[in-house]
Amino acid sequence: MILEGLVTTLSPEGELNIAPMGPKIPADLSMGTFVLRPYRTSTTYRNLKEGGEGVFHVVDDVLLLAQAAIGSPLVPSPETFAAKSVAGRVLADACRYYEFRAIVVDDVDERTTILVETLAEGRIRDFLGLNRAKSAVVEAAILATRTAFLPIDEILAEYRKFSTIVDKTGGPPERRALDMLTDHVRRAAESKASAS
Amino acid sequence: MILEGLVTTLSPEGELNIAPMGPKIPADLSMGTFVLRPYRTSTTYRNLKEGGEGVFHVVDDVLLLAQAAIGSPLVPSPETFAAKSVAGRVLADACRYYEFRAIVVDDVDERTTILVETLAEGRIRDFLGLNRAKSAVVEAAILATRTAFLPIDEILAEYRKFSTIVDKTGGPPERRALDMLTDHVRRAAESKASAS
Repeated sequence: MILEGLVTTLSPEGELNIAPMGPKIPADLSMGTFVLRPYRTSTTYRNLKEGGEGVFHVVDDVLLLAQAAIGSPLVPSPETFAAKSVAGRVLADACRYYEFRAIVVDDVDERTTILVETLAEGRIRDFLGLNRAKSAVVEAAILATRTAFLPIDEILAEYRKFSTIVDKTGGPPERRALDMLTDHVRRAAESKASAS
Repeated sequence: MILEGLVTTLSPEGELNIAPMGPKIPADLSMGTFVLRPYRTSTTYRNLKEGGEGVFHVVDDVLLLAQAAIGSPLVPSPETFAAKSVAGRVLADACRYYEFRAIVVDDVDERTTILVETLAEGRIRDFLGLNRAKSAVVEAAILATRTAFLPIDEILAEYRKFSTIVDKTGGPPERRALDMLTDHVRRAAESKASAS
């Protein structure tokens, strides 16, 4: 099972990085160990290779997730507090979090496989629940990172469906997230057009 | 905001009904009052009109949600326990629940509007978190209830996308849910074809 959320890591200089991540978790949903698969080009990979520690967060804030997905400035800048058992930061508005240490790093492939074990976990607040608008933003964020491979028209056709769902079932943060992702895709379309 | 979940109500004879429901909740996500919109033809509407009480559940069990959406037998039959403050039953595997009483019933239209207030609430376990497979099953369940209005080919094209997502990010319950919904849609397609 893949659980979408956010991973925070620190660079050797102590700079905080926040990245979307869909770790593979066991079928029994226990979180004692789980698997991250960051690309070798990512900051998360570099930070884990260096420091080996981070925090995975279960979140329902899809605006933050969308911002992190496209590398947009995180506005408002998310509050964090120091992790207890690892060198890292915890997102203060997460639902739950898992402070982890890498135990096996397989980075032969471009997409790496990092097995981590949870050293401490915490619960901050309830996850809202099933909300179609939040799910639509997650799907939109994934498509927004694939503008290089997928036809832009196809992405925008999906976005029109997402927009209807967001208007019907979401709130202002989901609307703002989808608008931001739409802008991102349109800009990608323009640079694709001017490059060809 | 629309929060998808399950409502349980009891008939005057005490028979339990479990129905998917997407209540409208306030933007601040407080659950003191919220709005249900069951159709006048539904058992939930009839039970609420008679008894005025029920329980809304935040769930992440999309197999149960899918079964309830298409009126399939609930297998395994979900465990319940007695509500504390209303005549009703609580789904024992829900994440959170809200025992409610109807305070305004507007049933002029085919789709009714029922304002309810929460009399008691409870927390049983954590909601897993953002999972694309669960979201895909929710979307598939909604489409499965619209076979009368939507072109079947369009529904099945969406289902192919959902299937990829479920295989990649879900577990056996999500797979089972999507298979069950696919069967349901195919059967609807056959009866549509034989009726025309």
